[in-house]
Amino acid sequence: MKAIAVEPGAGEPTLVERPRPEPTAGEALVRTLRVGVDGTDHEVIAGHHGDVPAGEDELVLGHEAVGVVEDANGTDLEEGQYVVPTVRRRPDGVGNEYFERGEPDMAPGGEYVERGIAGAHGFMAEYVTSPVEYLVPIPDDLAALGFLVEPVSISEKAIEHAVATRSAFEWEPESALVLGNGSLGLLTLAMFEETLEIDRTYCLGRRDRPDPTIEMIEELGATYVDSRQTPVPEIPEAHEGIDLIYEATGYPKHAFETVDALAPNGVGVLLGVPEPWEFEVDGGRLHREMVLHNKALVGTVNSHRGHFEAAIDTLSQLPEWFTDDLVTGVYGLEEFEAAFETGDDVVKTAVEFDAI
Amino acid sequence: MKAIAVEPGAGEPTLVERPRPEPTAGEALVRTLRVGVDGTDHEVIAGHHGDVPAGEDELVLGHEAVGVVEDANGTDLEEGQYVVPTVRRRPDGVGNEYFERGEPDMAPGGEYVERGIAGAHGFMAEYVTSPVEYLVPIPDDLAALGFLVEPVSISEKAIEHAVATRSAFEWEPESALVLGNGSLGLLTLAMFEETLEIDRTYCLGRRDRPDPTIEMIEELGATYVDSRQTPVPEIPEAHEGIDLIYEATGYPKHAFETVDALAPNGVGVLLGVPEPWEFEVDGGRLHREMVLHNKALVGTVNSHRGHFEAAIDTLSQLPEWFTDDLVTGVYGLEEFEAAFETGDDVVKTAVEFDAI
Repeated sequence: MKAIAVEPGAGEPTLVERPRPEPTAGEALVRTLRVGVDGTDHEVIAGHHGDVPAGEDELVLGHEAVGVVEDANGTDLEEGQYVVPTVRRRPDGVGNEYFERGEPDMAPGGEYVERGIAGAHGFMAEYVTSPVEYLVPIPDDLAALGFLVEPVSISEKAIEHAVATRSAFEWEPESALVLGNGSLGLLTLAMFEETLEIDRTYCLGRRDRPDPTIEMIEELGATYVDSRQTPVPEIPEAHEGIDLIYEATGYPKHAFETVDALAPNGVGVLLGVPEPWEFEVDGGRLHREMVLHNKALVGTVNSHRGHFEAAIDTLSQLPEWFTDDLVTGVYGLEEFEAAFETGDDVVKTAVEFDAI
Repeated sequence: MKAIAVEPGAGEPTLVERPRPEPTAGEALVRTLRVGVDGTDHEVIAGHHGDVPAGEDELVLGHEAVGVVEDANGTDLEEGQYVVPTVRRRPDGVGNEYFERGEPDMAPGGEYVERGIAGAHGFMAEYVTSPVEYLVPIPDDLAALGFLVEPVSISEKAIEHAVATRSAFEWEPESALVLGNGSLGLLTLAMFEETLEIDRTYCLGRRDRPDPTIEMIEELGATYVDSRQTPVPEIPEAHEGIDLIYEATGYPKHAFETVDALAPNGVGVLLGVPEPWEFEVDGGRLHREMVLHNKALVGTVNSHRGHFEAAIDTLSQLPEWFTDDLVTGVYGLEEFEAAFETGDDVVKTAVEFDAI
């Protein structure tokens, strides 16, 4: 079967031929339909993140997938059912408490592999197998957008954790800010607007108009903040202190500047995975500000099955114009390279392995 | 009546004569018994924190008090009842939502005054008045230690907020570290050991043996960590990654180093109130570490009536040897200056305005 893989150091994905996998007991065989491309894929391709499975010289890419059950293999799944696979897997032969209680997203490094990212092949292949507990059914009418479930699930977890940090007191966020206007940032902004019903939303980027992401931000009813004109710490003065900030830039100064942009009692949730970088901060002021105004910062990574299920529900609520504008390209295998191209006119792309 | 006050710039408290206050409707008159001294008092005296009430030239000190109802003034309190006053008050003529819902500790700057600290006279006076909703009854047998309720309430809130940040997943902290071996740090360490039943506790300081606080740390069953030998970021290597870190040093580098000392999925709760201080951090690595290991930092300040009530319950559970060793001096008005002296043999002091 055909698959899209990357060799360490190659710097670009290639189409490869691999044996079709056979499901073992408890696994189903899934025919892959669409697989999304995101920033993590680009980091894996560039060699900044992830690694090949032990003993192999290439990694099959892809962690945002939707497929259809081809062979239920005696499990409870039905053949023809659309499914979205989760990403983290228990390493071979290793049991651990996080997987046992359904919270693989909380497992520390070394206690998981991630399909398509680190230590396990991904879903950019014509067929994949998976234990059925990691295959989340999705309604037929959402299958075409099923590759958006994984990124939305990331924000389901992030928002759940952010809200938890504020659960010791009465907290009703009225304003939210997304740092970053990539596809994850835009999806999260739409979640804030459409499903959380936050009164005032903002999205920060560094683009000139006309720009398709700025148009989407404004169509959602949010305010575009150009970081070149309004740096993050100046947002309270230019707009207002923000109750909930979602960082999706991977720019580490934003993690610290978030403290200044928060309203009292606010929370900043961090999702970026930057490289080491030393810089100066006014640590005394930031520390004091966090304490005197009860501010919180919370890092979050990955997501569990419950977040995938919530994401499917969220996806069903997003307006059609939004997902139409968000997905700027779905490319067949014969032109898969196009799905990995970047540019200001590219928001979200996917590779299509088979028609829905 | 006699009171202990400080004038801005004076640098030391003095005994002053002031008119005895009269309770207005809804207020009770309280005869003050004991008032604790803490780091905040020293910051107020040094002029680093707080301010005098509007239009006045001195501030009566004291925010950790216990007293007895002298005149219930038609309220539901009983004369002779021991009470502990809370600290934050609604500024005159200003209503705000935080006080209305019993969460004055979440009010932003400008929407509260703090008795004995900022904008309102404190409790270091022979008599004080207070609206009865800010007077928390305390059992007779705890009255002598009632000045410890306010500091314990600070940690009740801090722990409540820290636990809340981890409430989106299954989290059972097995290790806890207190940064700082002052009286608040030691009280919190005792809470971790005695009431939260955390398996392994640590307390960081920078003292040589023999030292009374190190003896208390070890008597509690905790491990003393000398920061000169084991800096905060090296604690995981020297001991273990820590699930719950409580920062009570006010040293801002500790706020950032906490990220390194945390175990995956851990939380650091910040309580210090440092001055501005710029320094270099590896912001990229800290940001990445928070995200990839789901770590959280949460600032907290002050406490509300519910925390005072929890603190009274906690105080009843602390071993007698511990509070005996903690309180190194209770001084009458004729020697009140002694309560403000500091040194390695001083842990917690109080001024006694009247015998219990």
